[in-house]
Amino acid sequence: MRVINFNAGPAGLPLPALERARDELLEFQGSGMSIMEHSHRGKEYDAVHEEAIALLTKLLAIPDTHQVLFLQGGASQQFAQIPMNFLTPETSADFLMTGVWSEKAFDEAKYYGKPRIAATTVNADKRYTRVPRQDELKVDPRAAYVHMTSNNTIYGTQWHTFPDVGAVPLVADMSSDLLWKPIDVSQFALIYAGAQKNVGPSGIVIVVVAKEFMARGRQDIPKIFRYSTYAENNSLYNTPPTFAIYLCRNVLSWIQDVGGLKQLEAWNRQKGDLLYAAIDRHPEFYRGPVEKDSRSYMNVVFRLPTEALDEAFVAESKKAGMVGLKGHRSAGGIRVSLYNAVTVDNVRALVSFMDEFVRTRG
Amino acid sequence: MRVINFNAGPAGLPLPALERARDELLEFQGSGMSIMEHSHRGKEYDAVHEEAIALLTKLLAIPDTHQVLFLQGGASQQFAQIPMNFLTPETSADFLMTGVWSEKAFDEAKYYGKPRIAATTVNADKRYTRVPRQDELKVDPRAAYVHMTSNNTIYGTQWHTFPDVGAVPLVADMSSDLLWKPIDVSQFALIYAGAQKNVGPSGIVIVVVAKEFMARGRQDIPKIFRYSTYAENNSLYNTPPTFAIYLCRNVLSWIQDVGGLKQLEAWNRQKGDLLYAAIDRHPEFYRGPVEKDSRSYMNVVFRLPTEALDEAFVAESKKAGMVGLKGHRSAGGIRVSLYNAVTVDNVRALVSFMDEFVRTRG
Repeated sequence: MRVINFNAGPAGLPLPALERARDELLEFQGSGMSIMEHSHRGKEYDAVHEEAIALLTKLLAIPDTHQVLFLQGGASQQFAQIPMNFLTPETSADFLMTGVWSEKAFDEAKYYGKPRIAATTVNADKRYTRVPRQDELKVDPRAAYVHMTSNNTIYGTQWHTFPDVGAVPLVADMSSDLLWKPIDVSQFALIYAGAQKNVGPSGIVIVVVAKEFMARGRQDIPKIFRYSTYAENNSLYNTPPTFAIYLCRNVLSWIQDVGGLKQLEAWNRQKGDLLYAAIDRHPEFYRGPVEKDSRSYMNVVFRLPTEALDEAFVAESKKAGMVGLKGHRSAGGIRVSLYNAVTVDNVRALVSFMDEFVRTRG
Repeated sequence: MRVINFNAGPAGLPLPALERARDELLEFQGSGMSIMEHSHRGKEYDAVHEEAIALLTKLLAIPDTHQVLFLQGGASQQFAQIPMNFLTPETSADFLMTGVWSEKAFDEAKYYGKPRIAATTVNADKRYTRVPRQDELKVDPRAAYVHMTSNNTIYGTQWHTFPDVGAVPLVADMSSDLLWKPIDVSQFALIYAGAQKNVGPSGIVIVVVAKEFMARGRQDIPKIFRYSTYAENNSLYNTPPTFAIYLCRNVLSWIQDVGGLKQLEAWNRQKGDLLYAAIDRHPEFYRGPVEKDSRSYMNVVFRLPTEALDEAFVAESKKAGMVGLKGHRSAGGIRVSLYNAVTVDNVRALVSFMDEFVRTRG
């Protein structure tokens, strides 16, 4: 029996996407082999590749000014690959610091150019409990780009209004909230996302890049690291992670089937609102550190009065068929990840458990 | 019904490895979720990760001096990542040029140091029909490393005795023949292989690196690109491609079950010998360009007297349930890939078809 999976990533995937993969794992569409055994240059795989791009383009309403690319190496490789492409030792990029992942992106940029902090909400405990306000941003108009993390999995914060950075290209790590709702892609020069939260398995990175921005990329770096190489070859310069892309196709197809991003947003808001309401009903017991305006709809973090209660919460919820609730090793406490495969009913089950837990243990 | 799959990569996988994946795709070992939905830091995935490393270590008899790493980006990324780690603008690496992939590796190295050709078998047609002899190597003892491609998928050549490069570290791209037979890992400073031929699906690169060599790696490059980062974190610095590693585990487990690399070598030699015997029976009809000493046991290439016959061969073999026989787009003709999942009986079927084809069309 499948459990209720609140994992932070790799995360649960929609059952229909997995069932489809299982049913044709040995034989893809009567071709006599698995999709992962097909050549990446054959017509069977090509149709899947094109469908994944077309579905993503449609769901996100990606304009002609932008292109979808499939890369590898996780968002962590993008932390280095973006400055490798767009910085020189003499140029700078501005970073909006909102947590562990922005810090890592900042650190990798140092090897290629001059990263600069344009805003940070780090507090005296070296933690982050909110994202910056617009009036806190000090963007350098000469920056090659501004880098932001749209959702912070560890601290449970999320940008609800994207920052206005003027004419400077905006680059966003959306690993943990791409596809949670419709967005205006045209605001961004480059969006990247490790797929393993809302889109598919680990091992594949979705990039949506403005062609105009991509054209500024350095040509004096290895071919395999240039975004333009992926663009010119429709992400088939070398063998892509075909099965991972196939699974993303299955997930994207499921998103379309259930009604697209507006429907997902409605469910995701319902899920987050139910859970935050449970926290707010028992503010002395479930202590959410995040300021309300910055609360994430993807990762909800809170602590119980003691670490022993945190542990009991995780252990007892597991007995009730719910897994993945332990906070990140660097943050502790409880973390509930509410990615697209988590249903409203899953959250109702958790909320009932939480109400009961506070009644018996509070 | 599954076909006989001679694809060059992504290639056919052993049926038991795929069946295992199918059977537990929705629920891994009673855990209530797919292995791809598990956290990469959880005990269920960790056991798979460790088992994959342990199986590879045992099958290849990897000594304690070396470490297994899992990377992403394909062998093509390694073409750049190796010189990024081990070259500076002032240092050089020696390349043994045996085909398209060595050329690509050479080209990417230019961005980090001074690649130098220590041997090449390129001919007047800019093709390669053999690998270099030992007496043709001109290795610079000051080279940071020597790079070779152990098997050349496009030209159908293979090194049957690894070169002696003295005290210079030997780096080998074994993407298309790792695990075809036992090898002496201690001869190599670094072995890398995209998994999608003999080991698993695309999207995962196996690296076996000498710890001593790795320690010479540059520390002034981004963390995500350093081999030492992968080594220090047991390939879990960031989220690895968990499902791809799981599939490799299934394939490695199958290799162990059928008798290990000695058994695979026996089968692979039988397969290659059967096929080359068929070619040599009809040398006017099946024209193999490769010199006998350099013939590959993984990719067998030949041409028929006309392109029309090449096409008829591909079309009719497909009707007979055999796919993947078309040569690489840059080479033309026929290519038969005989990776580990191809059985001796599969090759017997092909050989019967070839004998019959020459009888009716020769």
